[in-house]
Amino acid sequence: MSGVVAVHVGAGSHSSSLKGEYKKLMKNACNQAMEVLRGGGNAVDAVCTATQVLEDSPRTNAGFGSSLTAEGGVECDASVMDGHTLRHGAVGAVPGVRNPVLLARQILDAQSQPLPGGLVPPSFLAGPGAQMWAASNNVETCQPEELVADRSRRIHEESRRNIQRLEEGGTKRRRYALPEEEEEMQGGLLDTVGAVCVDSSGYVASAVSSGGLLLKHTGRVGQAAVYGCGCWAENNCDGSGVSIGVSTTGCGEHLIRTMFARLCARAAISPELGSNITHAVTTHFLESDFLEGVHPRMAGALILRYDPQSAVSDLYWLHTTRTMGVCYMTTNDRKPQAQFSELAEDKIGMSVNLQCKSFGGHLPITTSGELQPGPSHRGLLVPGEEEEEREKSDSSDEEEEPG
Amino acid sequence: MSGVVAVHVGAGSHSSSLKGEYKKLMKNACNQAMEVLRGGGNAVDAVCTATQVLEDSPRTNAGFGSSLTAEGGVECDASVMDGHTLRHGAVGAVPGVRNPVLLARQILDAQSQPLPGGLVPPSFLAGPGAQMWAASNNVETCQPEELVADRSRRIHEESRRNIQRLEEGGTKRRRYALPEEEEEMQGGLLDTVGAVCVDSSGYVASAVSSGGLLLKHTGRVGQAAVYGCGCWAENNCDGSGVSIGVSTTGCGEHLIRTMFARLCARAAISPELGSNITHAVTTHFLESDFLEGVHPRMAGALILRYDPQSAVSDLYWLHTTRTMGVCYMTTNDRKPQAQFSELAEDKIGMSVNLQCKSFGGHLPITTSGELQPGPSHRGLLVPGEEEEEREKSDSSDEEEEPG
Repeated sequence: MSGVVAVHVGAGSHSSSLKGEYKKLMKNACNQAMEVLRGGGNAVDAVCTATQVLEDSPRTNAGFGSSLTAEGGVECDASVMDGHTLRHGAVGAVPGVRNPVLLARQILDAQSQPLPGGLVPPSFLAGPGAQMWAASNNVETCQPEELVADRSRRIHEESRRNIQRLEEGGTKRRRYALPEEEEEMQGGLLDTVGAVCVDSSGYVASAVSSGGLLLKHTGRVGQAAVYGCGCWAENNCDGSGVSIGVSTTGCGEHLIRTMFARLCARAAISPELGSNITHAVTTHFLESDFLEGVHPRMAGALILRYDPQSAVSDLYWLHTTRTMGVCYMTTNDRKPQAQFSELAEDKIGMSVNLQCKSFGGHLPITTSGELQPGPSHRGLLVPGEEEEEREKSDSSDEEEEPG
Repeated sequence: MSGVVAVHVGAGSHSSSLKGEYKKLMKNACNQAMEVLRGGGNAVDAVCTATQVLEDSPRTNAGFGSSLTAEGGVECDASVMDGHTLRHGAVGAVPGVRNPVLLARQILDAQSQPLPGGLVPPSFLAGPGAQMWAASNNVETCQPEELVADRSRRIHEESRRNIQRLEEGGTKRRRYALPEEEEEMQGGLLDTVGAVCVDSSGYVASAVSSGGLLLKHTGRVGQAAVYGCGCWAENNCDGSGVSIGVSTTGCGEHLIRTMFARLCARAAISPELGSNITHAVTTHFLESDFLEGVHPRMAGALILRYDPQSAVSDLYWLHTTRTMGVCYMTTNDRKPQAQFSELAEDKIGMSVNLQCKSFGGHLPITTSGELQPGPSHRGLLVPGEEEEEREKSDSSDEEEEPG
């Protein structure tokens, strides 16, 4: 079978003028993960490598360049799950770690080493204690301020002034200095990166990494650190025989309350062309009693489903935000494919845009589809709808990037 | 209808000589929570009051008197869930907060207040940032070392010496200075306190609080802080019509990987005399693929199930550890009932001891039962089995406490 790796740069509101840059970054992440797979690495190695590349970019809200806390610092959440061992390693609100996903991975790996006296290795470390653990376990640490990008500082400063203006009773929001930042900040959340992979052994893994919400309180932990909420990976998911990897993005508090990664994994067990996924996200997120009073409801997920019977891998991605950027590649491909999907302005936070791409299989046919039910078709798949959105959707994968 | 409050002092290995003291403490917690209910407080108020009383005791592993980290500090996990609003507030690895459950409750409450500029109030804070939040939200903070009890320091010191001896290749473990500490330390984990409640409006709530595992790494977060793992409260649970409150105890890492609170809540929907609970805990904890290689598997839970149709409240408690201490009281009762249940030495970590007590109902009959399936009857309820264990089980609720 062929291995598949896919990455995302979050569900949010990506600036049109930056899409080329995001695509280049995602392709780089896929290419590096693919090198790892081709070099004999497994699914966990691949998702960590891909996520590390995404973290290192100042453009993403993860690792270097994360959104700043109210106090102006960087604190990161990340987790990794191995579908083969079902182990999960997580870090929350960790300062001064360049690649939180690599720390999460070390925490995952360390769980296989018994400790003296029956002590139980941790699966989840938060705050300065997580940084301490990194320092004593060969994970690169740095001064917390080294992770602050100029762009993050600028957005932080301008957002703080906006909040202050609102608190003082003002109504007109100050605009951001750069047009692309204005577009991203006005359009909604831009959160989290992550990756999913099935390797040539059929093992799945997933990773997620996030700097969290802009102006969050110090110590705030989002879904990227929380079991069942930020990522999921399970070979033979719920005994169904299929293997599922999930990486989520969106407003962490709301993804925690709906256990979003686990929710998507369960929904993806069914092979019914994604109708189950749309239905599950509609019922248990968009219409969930657990989010009473929450509007708009912002989420996204990258879901990889591998069926060992047919050797088909189905990649789904979904978002209730304006945009989501994803990229994927198989071991048979020469180049990764990157694209952004879009949701119409009036459907943001209210409707699911679900997209699908299939790979492999014993048959030579692969399918690819865009599945975008409108609000009046909740839970139903209506391929071919939303022509306007599809045209807006940027699928020119081979374009040259600016700069 | 009558309100019910129940508390636990963890599933673990309680020293026989200390059981009176534990019972007195649990009764005090129930009495104070009942005063809150009778004074017009709701289920959330009641579980927080009960848990606060348990935290304040140097005898429990929560708040003052928590187990110490490897570095000798106290860091606490706690969470509260409101079954009516379905909101959850959590703190992880927080230093210097006298009552972590009250901080979790403030975090829960603050979620109902919108923040300026669409900022999302946090649901989960960890580490020093959580302490900062406490200080600015009227939750009592203190110097971290003020939470270190003499007993904790003594156990920490002796445990560290044991570990060192083992690391140096020694086999014989140094014994603890006090016989009751020897008994508790040799017998397994002693972890976590918590409470569940249904109030006179039929609303459920739950709370959990823990100092975490002895000698844990600084920053380690256990199940008491993690959504779906430490506590659960849901009116009309999963649309079933019944309301469920759960508070869990045991090895945090393993309760996280099995989402233990949510697991127990789902299992308790069925009214079939607890057979579902035993089956679910056996299948999804004792035999779970998610705990591959983990032996013994230590967990406990206090589960309150309220059926508004019949007005019956069923209280279940279960443990796979040697002992579990619980106490309960209804608004009709003059005194709380405290008891310890026990599991035979050779079944620890391998078998579920499930106990049940029913209250109220439109019919004047209440039932009470002890449900202890042996390993050969996994998933089946065999009331009347395990006579020997039942005799050992201490149910003399009205005894005078020593000291």
